[in-house]
Order: sequence, then structure tokens, then C-alpha cells
Amino acid sequence: MGRAHSNAFLQTPHFFPVKIRPRLKVICGRNAPALQSMAAQWGWEETATDWRTVIDRKDVDAVDIAVPNYLHAEIAIAAAQAGKMVFCEKPLATTLADAERMAAAARKVRTLVWFNYRRVPAIAFTRQLIDEGRIGRVFHYRAVYLQSWGNDPARRTGWKLNRAEAGSGVIGDLLSHLVDTALFLNGPIAEIRAQSKIFLEGREVEDAVAAIASFANGSFGTFEATRFATGMLNRNGFEIHGEKGMAGFDFEDMNRLLFFDASVAKNEQGVRSFLVTGPDHPYWQNFWKPGHTIGYEHTFIATFGDFLHCLETETPFHANFDDALAVQRVLDRVERSE
Amino acid sequence: MGRAHSNAFLQTPHFFPVKIRPRLKVICGRNAPALQSMAAQWGWEETATDWRTVIDRKDVDAVDIAVPNYLHAEIAIAAAQAGKMVFCEKPLATTLADAERMAAAARKVRTLVWFNYRRVPAIAFTRQLIDEGRIGRVFHYRAVYLQSWGNDPARRTGWKLNRAEAGSGVIGDLLSHLVDTALFLNGPIAEIRAQSKIFLEGREVEDAVAAIASFANGSFGTFEATRFATGMLNRNGFEIHGEKGMAGFDFEDMNRLLFFDASVAKNEQGVRSFLVTGPDHPYWQNFWKPGHTIGYEHTFIATFGDFLHCLETETPFHANFDDALAVQRVLDRVERSE
Amino acid sequence: MGRAHSNAFLQTPHFFPVKIRPRLKVICGRNAPALQSMAAQWGWEETATDWRTVIDRKDVDAVDIAVPNYLHAEIAIAAAQAGKMVFCEKPLATTLADAERMAAAARKVRTLVWFNYRRVPAIAFTRQLIDEGRIGRVFHYRAVYLQSWGNDPARRTGWKLNRAEAGSGVIGDLLSHLVDTALFLNGPIAEIRAQSKIFLEGREVEDAVAAIASFANGSFGTFEATRFATGMLNRNGFEIHGEKGMAGFDFEDMNRLLFFDASVAKNEQGVRSFLVTGPDHPYWQNFWKPGHTIGYEHTFIATFGDFLHCLETETPFHANFDDALAVQRVLDRVERSE
Amino acid sequence: MGRAHSNAFLQTPHFFPVKIRPRLKVICGRNAPALQSMAAQWGWEETATDWRTVIDRKDVDAVDIAVPNYLHAEIAIAAAQAGKMVFCEKPLATTLADAERMAAAARKVRTLVWFNYRRVPAIAFTRQLIDEGRIGRVFHYRAVYLQSWGNDPARRTGWKLNRAEAGSGVIGDLLSHLVDTALFLNGPIAEIRAQSKIFLEGREVEDAVAAIASFANGSFGTFEATRFATGMLNRNGFEIHGEKGMAGFDFEDMNRLLFFDASVAKNEQGVRSFLVTGPDHPYWQNFWKPGHTIGYEHTFIATFGDFLHCLETETPFHANFDDALAVQRVLDRVERSE
Repeated sequence: MGRAHSNAFLQTPHFFPVKIRPRLKVICGRNAPALQSMAAQWGWEETATDWRTVIDRKDVDAVDIAVPNYLHAEIAIAAAQAGKMVFCEKPLATTLADAERMAAAARKVRTLVWFNYRRVPAIAFTRQLIDEGRIGRVFHYRAVYLQSWGNDPARRTGWKLNRAEAGSGVIGDLLSHLVDTALFLNGPIAEIRAQSKIFLEGREVEDAVAAIASFANGSFGTFEATRFATGMLNRNGFEIHGEKGMAGFDFEDMNRLLFFDASVAKNEQGVRSFLVTGPDHPYWQNFWKPGHTIGYEHTFIATFGDFLHCLETETPFHANFDDALAVQRVLDRVERSE
Repeated sequence: MGRAHSNAFLQTPHFFPVKIRPRLKVICGRNAPALQSMAAQWGWEETATDWRTVIDRKDVDAVDIAVPNYLHAEIAIAAAQAGKMVFCEKPLATTLADAERMAAAARKVRTLVWFNYRRVPAIAFTRQLIDEGRIGRVFHYRAVYLQSWGNDPARRTGWKLNRAEAGSGVIGDLLSHLVDTALFLNGPIAEIRAQSKIFLEGREVEDAVAAIASFANGSFGTFEATRFATGMLNRNGFEIHGEKGMAGFDFEDMNRLLFFDASVAKNEQGVRSFLVTGPDHPYWQNFWKPGHTIGYEHTFIATFGDFLHCLETETPFHANFDDALAVQRVLDRVERSE
Repeated sequence: MGRAHSNAFLQTPHFFPVKIRPRLKVICGRNAPALQSMAAQWGWEETATDWRTVIDRKDVDAVDIAVPNYLHAEIAIAAAQAGKMVFCEKPLATTLADAERMAAAARKVRTLVWFNYRRVPAIAFTRQLIDEGRIGRVFHYRAVYLQSWGNDPARRTGWKLNRAEAGSGVIGDLLSHLVDTALFLNGPIAEIRAQSKIFLEGREVEDAVAAIASFANGSFGTFEATRFATGMLNRNGFEIHGEKGMAGFDFEDMNRLLFFDASVAKNEQGVRSFLVTGPDHPYWQNFWKPGHTIGYEHTFIATFGDFLHCLETETPFHANFDDALAVQRVLDRVERSE
Repeated sequence: MGRAHSNAFLQTPHFFPVKIRPRLKVICGRNAPALQSMAAQWGWEETATDWRTVIDRKDVDAVDIAVPNYLHAEIAIAAAQAGKMVFCEKPLATTLADAERMAAAARKVRTLVWFNYRRVPAIAFTRQLIDEGRIGRVFHYRAVYLQSWGNDPARRTGWKLNRAEAGSGVIGDLLSHLVDTALFLNGPIAEIRAQSKIFLEGREVEDAVAAIASFANGSFGTFEATRFATGMLNRNGFEIHGEKGMAGFDFEDMNRLLFFDASVAKNEQGVRSFLVTGPDHPYWQNFWKPGHTIGYEHTFIATFGDFLHCLETETPFHANFDDALAVQRVLDRVERSE
């Protein structure tokens, strides 16, 4: 994730009308040679191997945490206590207790959690459609995150498969994204029941999870996240079915939105597929011409662009640590529901 | 359903090389004028308003039941006891006890349950792909049946919304189809947990249901059936993700199958969409030229074509009452799981 | 085509409220054993091997011609002169001169040409959208008919590849359909320039043709028909781009229409894909429930249903011989344009 | 285009392992205030309003031309004569004579023409599939570039609609891209016939063009480019149908490729749709993880990455001025064919 974040820091001023220009002061990690190469490629001024020394520096205003999940809490709390702005990868923590401690510690500083999908133009536009009453009372919120690398023999190691480092499997890695998007679009989850599954013997973390939920707004929810959906690379998607319309999204086609308007003449009703790349779509003034699509990295740029704007205007930014804590509460119920 | 069945009886000999030609002897119902019109249009020789008189006739070999669910058991049991072949619409019954009595009563006669989706060429071909090892060990079986008429003000009445007549809502009406297809393609369900939902005040039967299952083959299953999926007319579909490949289907595009072959070169892997209308596909010798599609009614024709073939060759036919009883056992667990 | 026509004759009274019930009197062909089998399967009362004897019969009211193209003219003219109604497969003839003679001879009898695609509900609905002004001034009419069997080693013979019998290749076989649909939807073609192509040495008829046209309504047209479009089975489709909207169709997904409405809010504009299977769509009262699709054969049933209705109400039916003659005039210009 | 180019210059070293780091020395234009803002946002060191002064500078090694078409020739020739590397937007020139003069003048310097679509991973991968014999003998090359802004009342001005500045309409603007991609993928065009169309009264340049071509490899080609395809934003696509397979692309879904392999079992053949975002796909080592898509701007980054690599390794780069001249020759025949 270091590359995606570095890129966002550098690119934001090119696309967003911000006054603050982030300075890539020091990049910190445990592998010194890799760090040198990364610093050279992305223009970080210095490198460090002990994060504590970075937090102690007076010339550092913000700390961005992109390390295995189990390290989030300690670094974030230390950084917040040192008065730094704190950016953190998702999931916020490996336990609800840690997440609560982090949110408590960071309440006086500005925080950002990289729930980058909120800034996919199609998702931001879905939020706008909901606000405009184009979906109406919601009946169903149906979300899936389907990947397939879980069964790839070449990918049998790494901290994401290690319980001690990752805390969980798809629950923290994928379901966290689905839940943040759901809370963002459809509001609080009142109840959730889930079941998870390990397919490979010896695997420490769950390969798949499914959940059935009730939202506070009365809608019925289903969630499914897996690393064993053969044929799918990164299908992070949802369908929202409401009284007035339907919206659907799939990150594999991230520039597109599906939209159904139940108010047009019956015989002309159909699911529309369109590029969310027009002058009246979120973030499109920032990027390219209509029909000229953006990619994965732009979700980070837009996230950081909004963060800087909020910083400059002293307005609240979301998703922050409290938003991520709300996600963690749902994940906790998922883990305890079995 | 009377039209779809009448059509199947008449059309089967045109498309299937059967010796037996069904004779449309007597059509029975409670509304005499409607019955006359139906008989005239489809060539039924006689009409009747009391089903008992039909069952007593010596010149009737088979009884086809297409009435509200709560009437299935009594008619089917009487017909079976009279030694008739019995065809019945799904779900087999409104209670597991009734279904068990029906299956027991009908064990000496030939039975057919109109789980017509088994004969969609794309679904029959999926079964063939599974048999040929093209899917391999199954990880996920994911099924949905999404309709939207539940919220249509023009459709607030009818026996399907009446608990006494229908027995249940989407569980008997839609989930039954999903479960039959799942058992057909993926084998027995070991465990299932479900939750259902009523969206409209005063509605007697469930508008939606979601379930999480474990199959005997170790795969993880999810099911979702609803009449409130705005934007969807008849999305009866599944995705099966296995070690070797993936298969996907949606009845709205019933001539198509999605197939992913994990054994081809990595950089050429992709989900294929193809018409199951070729000379090497199930039922295609029966219908039209490659690329010339069939429709909803052909699933009934193919069902009945297979039934007659089994009758002529004295081989077992599926789905019969025992198959439908297996479905009913799952539906019963769904209803009791909440 | 004999099967598709027989089926239409038998099925029309089941789906259309017609008083006339066609009687399958005599089926005629050169291969006596095949004829017997066909007659038995579809219920033709008699067989004959000399079409002249059939035309002489008093108990025959209509003659349906489904033979190689070069035979159309002689049979049709004789049948028309005998006062029979004449139905004929497309293309009407192998030469414009023949087509003119046929149209002239048949002017006093009712005629039908099996341009069945006009009765695809999605195409009939497109015509309705155009009539309602939903497309507006047309800019582009773009049509393709893509098949791939031309390169199939198993299909190197048959009258369709024989110039003497077929008259032409894709021009008569595929482009004729495109042109009829274009004239039906977009009106007369003012100018057309074309180029054709033979890919296989020794092939007598063109494998592919492309054409650029100007319509009388000022729109710009392109046409492409081929038997060498690897990957495509039967993609008979069009896109119409107008001032107010767009409509698109592909016969491989014949129950669907693509529609774009340029009058909705800019940021909600998108191409809709929907099933033309609703109560407010053409022919849907005749067939099944919303979302329950029809197939290839239903286009013939609907054609014949309309024909019988016109016969009963003494109103003009289209496409008749004059409509097919208009198509032939365009094909003739295509053939002469190179 | 200045933004897309500036971005490419800055981003290339982040994604490509190049030694040369471009320095954004001076940005030149006629609108001084806009120039200041652009320079500030993208980090250009200086601004200038007279391009001649820039070309005279010793500290400038390369000149990038992103101005209205009619100015390309003079600037490019001057820059080349001054020994600078020259980058130029497409089309190379407004006339074939100018293009020839430019290519001649630039033969001793390194040139780049921004035919950026060659570096779309899906298109680069198509080239690879062709090289590996996965398409085989090509039958059809079918290309379209469909936009719809031509009829937008808000876009009735600008140099692209001015014949003196643009030289042509869709021929130079859109068809040039189609032709470059065609030459890149399918080789030289032997013959081409075309027709163009103006829809709006008073418009100086063609709104649409269609062409029928024969390629030197024996394949049959069709091209269509328009600004009046209601419903389409930026559908720059092709389908190549060959003896062994088919490949298809649409820039609106730029991360996807359609591929059909005619060598797999008949009943498993189908058009695959897949993300060209895997480790074995072109450029993917440069960007993000599998399934994490890129956008429009990355085609410029990849173009410039390849250019720098060729510069460092002293190998030829394409598309250069000679490649663009080959495109111009085709465009010239198109313009003269009517």
C-alpha cells in the first residue's frame, strides 16, 4: 500500500485545488534496502527503520500507517499522543478493544482511514442518488467481495494469512470494506449473523464469510466475502434495491454504475449501465474528460484530496477513526456470531 | 401454469422422438367459463369441475396438478392411490408432513414435479461440466432468485400472498427452485440457517429470505430469494466456484452460460459467456439451429420429453416426488431456523 | 425452415385470439422418406412430391414456400395465379427481375414473407419507441449480422453455398434480414455502396459484405453481414442513434432491448438493458409472464398470428411481397455497386 | 492534453524503471494567466508565450506539441531542425504534404506521436495474442469510435470544429486513432473507400465517417467514427475475427479484453471477458495488483515509459513520425475517396 499512498500524496495537488502540498519527509520500514529503493522511486527525503524516531520528530505533522494490522494500534496511539495527524490502513485494528483505544486516543487529532472506496465516483454518486431520494425506502442491501487468490499455490504465505499479524482473514481484509461502504450508503446495522469458512487445511484465518443483517432503516442485508471465488479477481460490489430505484456497483468495472429508475414508464424501465465520468458526477472536475476513465489509484487521490480540503476548511473528514470503529463493532459481532 | 403444461403436452412429440403421444383428455377447474375457453384454445377434449370424478376415470392415466399449494397433497395422494401417474407443481406441499405423506403414497406410481429449471440447457450442461470434472472441488455455491413484483400495488392479491393457500411466500415459491437446482448440481445440504423478512405491513407470507448453508461436499452455500429486488424481473441464478472452474447462470438470459476454466493459461483466463445452443449441448438436437434460442416454455417441453422417454424405457425420472421431498426437508429447516 | 413454419401454424391458435385454425393439409418435398417422418412428427395430413399437384388442389388455400431460393419465383407465381395465399421464405428471389415478377403476379392475393424479425418483441417495441418520438431525428443506423459457420469444415456443402441455388451468399441470406429491419424501422434507403468478400478459395458466393448507406430521412447507415465472424453465432443486431435517444438490439439476446433516453438528467443517462417481456410490450399478452422469455420460434408464431388477424379483419399485412421487393431492390444495388 | 502529458512526464519514473528523470523546464502557450496556473499546479519551472524562444534554448532536449493541428507542422519541423526530440499529438498534420515534410525533417531525431492507445494493456496484449498465433489468419477487422458530443448545444465551438485549425473533423480526431491501432494490430491497408457526413448545418468539418477497407493480409476491414452516436461517450473499440480466435476491445471498459479461442472444445467455446490486470499482462508489473484497474492517464505514462526505455537502450520507438505518416496516408485516401 505504500506505493498507492505515496502516489496519492504526490498526485493530490495536481488534481485537487488544495493549498497544502504534502512533503514526503521520511519513509519508515524494517527492510532497509527496499526502503532505499522505494524512497528513490517516489521521492521520499529520508528513510528510517524505527517508527518511534519518526513520531518524535518535530518536522513530521502526519503519520501514515500501512503495516500489518497487529501493529496499527501501537503506532496510531503513539502518533496521536504525539499530536500528529494519523492516517491508517483498514481494518483499523485486530480487535474491537484495540480499535476503541485507538479511537479514544485519536479524538483530538485529525484521522483518516483508507476506506478508499467511498471516493470511487460511482459510489459517491450512489450516495448522492440516495440523498436525492432516487432509491427511496431501501428493501435490500446486498454486498459481495469476491477474490480468488486464496487457492493460488503461489500465494500461501504472507502476513495476511497469519492470524497473529492479520487478526483475521477476509473479515478484516474484505468484509471491512463492504461494511464501511454499507454504513456509508445505508446507515447503521442493527443485527448481523454470520458464518465463516476455512477451505484449506492448516490455514489460520477464515477464507470466506457470509452474513445476514438487518439495518436500522428496516432494510434486509446480505454480505459475502471470499478469497475462493474462482473466476473473480476483485469483485467488490453491491446492489441496493429500494422503493424508487436500484443502484449497483462492481469494482472490476469501477467507472460504471448500474441504476434503475422505477419512476419511468413501465415499458421503458431497465437497468442502466453508465460511466460515472461526466461533468455532473463526483470528482469528475478533478480528473479527465467525459468517458476518459480513472483507476484504482484515483480513489486514494480523491480520499486525500478531500482530507486536505477538510483540513484547510476545518471541517470534519470521513472515514476517520470513529467511522472505522463503527466498522470494527460490526466485524466484532460477525466474529462472535458463530 | 395450465398453459405452460398444456403446451408441453402438445409440443413434446414435435421435438422429442417419443412414441407416446399424450392425449389432452379432461381439464379440471373451479371456474367453468374459464375452463371452456382454456379447453377450446388448447384442445382439451372435456372439462370437469370436480377433480375426484377425473381421478375415478379409467381413461385417465396421468393427473397433472397445477393448483394452489394447499391442495396438492389431497389430490396427489388420491391420484396415486388410484394408480395414476402424478405430475405436480412445486413446491410439493405446504408442510413437510404433507410432502412425506405424498411421497409415501406415490412410491408405486410414476411421478414428476415441475422443477423445470433442471432442463434449461445451460443448467443441464452445468451438470455435465461438473460430471466431467470441469469445476472440481466446489468452494462456493451462491444462488439468488430476485423478483420485484412484491411491491407492485397492482399485485396485492392472489393465492400466492395468502398463507392458508400458499403455505409460505418466497420460500415455497422461489427458494424451492433454488434448492432443487442446488441439490441437482451440488448434492445434499448438511446445514442451513436462514432469516426471512416481511416488508409490507399486513402481508401474511415472507417477502424475502436469505440463508447460509454447508453442503455435504464441503462447499459453502448462500441463498437469497425475494419479491422486492427492484430492477429484477426473474433473476433465477447461481454461481458455482470450484477448484478447476466456475459456472454461472441467470434465467433472465436463459440461453447463456458463464464458464471460467482455471486450467487455461493465466493470462487468457476469463469468464466466458456463451449460448448453450450448439449441437453438443443438452437438448439442442431437439430444438433449433445453433444460435437460435429457446424460451421459458421449452423447459417444460424438455421436462416432459425426458419423462416420456423414461416411461418408455422404464428408467427412473427426476425430479420426482422423492426429489421434491428432499427439497421440502430443506425448506422446512429454513422455516424452523429463525 | 419447415419445422419452424409447421410449429407456427400449430401454435398460433394457442397464443393468438384467432378464429381461423390452420389445417396442415399437405407437405411437399423431394425426399419422400424425410417427408413421411416430418408429416408424422408435425401432423401433416398428406405428403406430395410434386408441388404442381398441390397448387392444383381445391382444398388448399395457402401455399408456404420454404425451398432453395432459386425455386421461389416459379412456385410463388404459379400459386398466386391459382389464387392461393402465398407465404415465402426470404430472400424473395435470386434476382430483382424475379422479385418484380413475383410481386406483380401476387398483387391480388394475400402474401407473407418470413421476415420474422419484425415480430421480435424488442424490434416491434423499437418501432413503437420511434413512433412515439423517443429516438427523434435519426443520425446513425448501424446494423450487423455476424455468424461464423462459413469457416466450419463440417459445413462446406449445402444449397446456401451454391450460387445456382442460392443466388448469392450473405447478401440474400443475412443482409436481406438487415435491410428489411432497416426499412421497417428507419424508412427507405436513398443510396448504398457496398463491397463483398470471399475468404475461401473455390467458394461461389460472397462470405461477407459491408455497405455504407444514406437513408431518405437523412441518417447515415452502415451494414455488415458475414459468415466469418469467429466467436459470433447469430448476432443479428442494430443500433439506432437519434437526437432523443438510442435503441440497440442483438438477436443472441432476443428478449432484451438496449435503450438510451437523452432526455433524462445528464448524470443519470445510461444505456438501459431490459427484457421486453412486460405487459406493456408488444406480443406479451400473447405469451408468458413478465420475465419469462420466448425464443426464436415465437417470431414465426407472432408473424403468423398477425397474418391471421389481418386476414380476419381484411387489413393489410406486412412484410408482404411488395415489402420484400423493396428489400430486393436494395440488395440489387448492393450487388451492382462493386 | 497538456495535463495528460504533464502527468505522464511526472509519473513515468514512479512506475517504470527508467534512469532518465524528465525535468519540466518550460511550458509554453498563448494564454499567460492559464499558463501560470498550469505551471504552478504541475511544477513547470518556467513559462513562455513564444514557442520559438523555447526551441532556441540549449537546456531544452525535447519539445512536446499539444496545440491545434494546423500548428503541428511548423513547430515540429523547427524543433527537429534544432535537434530536439519531438513529441506530437495526433493527427500528425492537417495534410499529407505537411506530414511528409514533418517526417522528413525529423528523421534524425527521436520522435513520439501520442497514439496512446497502443499502450492500453488490453491492446498491447492483443498484439501479443496475434504474435503468438492465437488469432490466426484474420478475416475481419472491425473498428468503431463512437462519441456523442457533436450534438451537444454546449459544445458548438472550439478549434476541433474549425476547419482551418483542425483540418478535418472525426477523420483526424477519431479515425486517426482507429487507423493507428489497425496498422499496429493488423498491418497495412491496401485499399480503403469511405463516406463522410455532416449532420449540423453550418458545421465545417465532418461529424461522421464510415470506411470499408482491404488489408494487405487479406482481411476485410470496416471503420466508423462519429460524434453523433447518442448514448456513447468514448467507445473506441475493435473486433478482430480470425481463423483461430477473436479479440475485442472497447475503451469505455479499457481494462477488459474480449477473447474467443476457437481451439477449445466446441461446447465450451465462448467470448471471454477478462481484466488485463494480471502479472502476465503487458505493463502490469508497472502498475497495481491484479484486479486493481488503471485509467486513461496510464496509457500516456506507459507510452512515455516505453519511450524513455527506448531512449536509454538506443532502440526504435513506435509510434514515431513515420508511423504517424503511415496513418496520414490512410486518412488522405479516406478524404479523397468520396
